Amino acid sequence: MDMKQITFLTDFGTKGGYVAQMKGVVCSITDARIVDISHEVSPQNVREGAFLLWTTAPFFPMGTIHVAVVDPGVGTERKGLIITTKKQILVGPDNGILLPTAHLLGDFVVYEITNPKYMIHPLSRTFHGRDIFAPVAAYIARGVPFGEIGTQTTHFVNMQFPLGENRGDRIVGKILYIDRFGNLLTNIPYDILPGDFAQKKISLLSGDRRWDSVPFVASYGYAKQGELLLTVGSNHFLEISMNQGNAAESLGLQPDAEIQLLIS
Amino acid sequence: MDMKQITFLTDFGTKGGYVAQMKGVVCSITDARIVDISHEVSPQNVREGAFLLWTTAPFFPMGTIHVAVVDPGVGTERKGLIITTKKQILVGPDNGILLPTAHLLGDFVVYEITNPKYMIHPLSRTFHGRDIFAPVAAYIARGVPFGEIGTQTTHFVNMQFPLGENRGDRIVGKILYIDRFGNLLTNIPYDILPGDFAQKKISLLSGDRRWDSVPFVASYGYAKQGELLLTVGSNHFLEISMNQGNAAESLGLQPDAEIQLLIS
Amino acid sequence: MDMKQITFLTDFGTKGGYVAQMKGVVCSITDARIVDISHEVSPQNVREGAFLLWTTAPFFPMGTIHVAVVDPGVGTERKGLIITTKKQILVGPDNGILLPTAHLLGDFVVYEITNPKYMIHPLSRTFHGRDIFAPVAAYIARGVPFGEIGTQTTHFVNMQFPLGENRGDRIVGKILYIDRFGNLLTNIPYDILPGDFAQKKISLLSGDRRWDSVPFVASYGYAKQGELLLTVGSNHFLEISMNQGNAAESLGLQPDAEIQLLIS
Repeated sequence: MDMKQITFLTDFGTKGGYVAQMKGVVCSITDARIVDISHEVSPQNVREGAFLLWTTAPFFPMGTIHVAVVDPGVGTERKGLIITTKKQILVGPDNGILLPTAHLLGDFVVYEITNPKYMIHPLSRTFHGRDIFAPVAAYIARGVPFGEIGTQTTHFVNMQFPLGENRGDRIVGKILYIDRFGNLLTNIPYDILPGDFAQKKISLLSGDRRWDSVPFVASYGYAKQGELLLTVGSNHFLEISMNQGNAAESLGLQPDAEIQLLIS
Repeated sequence: MDMKQITFLTDFGTKGGYVAQMKGVVCSITDARIVDISHEVSPQNVREGAFLLWTTAPFFPMGTIHVAVVDPGVGTERKGLIITTKKQILVGPDNGILLPTAHLLGDFVVYEITNPKYMIHPLSRTFHGRDIFAPVAAYIARGVPFGEIGTQTTHFVNMQFPLGENRGDRIVGKILYIDRFGNLLTNIPYDILPGDFAQKKISLLSGDRRWDSVPFVASYGYAKQGELLLTVGSNHFLEISMNQGNAAESLGLQPDAEIQLLIS
Repeated sequence: MDMKQITFLTDFGTKGGYVAQMKGVVCSITDARIVDISHEVSPQNVREGAFLLWTTAPFFPMGTIHVAVVDPGVGTERKGLIITTKKQILVGPDNGILLPTAHLLGDFVVYEITNPKYMIHPLSRTFHGRDIFAPVAAYIARGVPFGEIGTQTTHFVNMQFPLGENRGDRIVGKILYIDRFGNLLTNIPYDILPGDFAQKKISLLSGDRRWDSVPFVASYGYAKQGELLLTVGSNHFLEISMNQGNAAESLGLQPDAEIQLLIS
């Protein structure tokens, strides 16, 4: 277990050579194990990238270096950041993508990347993932001190995911993400649900639409085929799903939609 | 050549963070090399997953640990399995996905995963790939004995792929899989084809449809552009193809379709 | 930094098991680190594969072995090649896919793969990526001499990417590739642009279509949202882009389209 991990999270897709160019840079500097988180973040959707890092990073070991590059501001004056936390290290642009994970991992310190010695030259204006973030991550894996690569800063773009709330007769929250199966992942943590939630009659509201008698079940397989259901998803947040169906398509809800669960 | 391999085969897609969460768990336990088989199995298509494992596992070295997670029954009472074979180890849900490969690799013994010590806690109800199968595979790579992780069982869901047959005047079989190029992979092994097959006049029948004079050639490039052809595919089974075209679209055949080859 | 890298570039897609079969073969022979360049080359588009290898290989370290398999002629008499260069080693079919990269890396020597000892048996007619190119790359990683695997040859299919030209009042070139964001990558190297290019009035012409007053900017973010722009892309070639938009869709241009930039 001596191996270091460097992960990559981008919106570059895997059709072109961009991801491989970043990995080539890493391979030129360190033997660390390279792991993909995703390269299919919706183009320039910083919030979606932030969500994926926030839900995935905790499963990686101490010392893992995560490189997250969803970067609509590349080539402008936005900074590049290293964020150290209690457990892992985050590298990416200063647009908020790293911050929910930094808050979650705790005790974080932010550095602005400043030392051109740890960048690839000629430095492109449009691909800092390859020319700055990948080599910086690789040099960190080799043990170069953070203070040698950048300078500590308290100015950075912040981002946090607000959590849903239990208001007694209702639980309010929002959709954070839709997965491949059409499951709607909410910001409602399972531990704010009432203890007798499974025995309650639950109505789901969003905007002026309403779905009544939605069962809260232990897993998809406990609902009827095609039935709308609530369950605790694998991230330990409440999920709106459909057994062997696509809840997102069926309900027509999008990320960021506000939802309410009426309890009676 | 001291390195262990852990492979992953799922229907999770690579857009979300599910696959990376499993890899994060593996990285937390072992330095084994991680290899993807596919994450694009059609959602919940256990049979397609079983086919991919069956055709791919034999190319991996002795001692490889394959994790296959196409798991519509996750969170219900279906068991989790470790299957040891003469050469490699299989880990996944008890729904048949591992079984064609177990039969192929031979001398297999089935264990039900029972020891919570080798699972991730809190244990989700919807993602045993991450919370049970990934850590179990990683602990196996570290040398934890099978009997410590689970208990031997003879009760499990079986699955085998029946092979096509040579009935003299005709060969009968079925479509098992359609690949990216539209090649139709059959269950007809090349060694049941008559020695003079390439000299014969062959008609392909499926349902009430019929295609006459289909040439049997050594490779796609030996047929005319756009011509329907038969060839021995890379898995050493008979394949229905079209040189620089898409045979599946052109013929309108689906996996599991019965076919006959009339020989005259 | 003792680790060897083997990269894979194919048009196989990642849905089926073909890529994993190649990796299984490599894992059976060597502990080298395996890196994907892309498996989403447009089916049988040798030129697109050649472009991706040409732009990606230079970022990998000395000694990397690149396996590129876009292979419409598989199973016919086309040769299999190893190309050694000053820095890296290329393995793939003799259809030109390796040659632009060989010219770029320099001092190249071509070997025809001839020794069946380094192939997988039974040798398929349709999948030399798995049965010839993957094991050959893995044996090279293990140090088997080139002359033991093949024989030197001066007969091979050549390919080079012609570069754009500065003709004073205009720059002529062509589109080589369209990336995921719809950026049009040209063959016009940034160092043939006039020093005062950013101050000039530029018109883009292709066929009988014309777009006037296209700004040349340092990065996407310096143009207005949805505005057509010229910039130096990450490969240090001129790129036609649209800030937060899709230039390729908007302009309707395809790879290989001839373009002219009128300067006034």
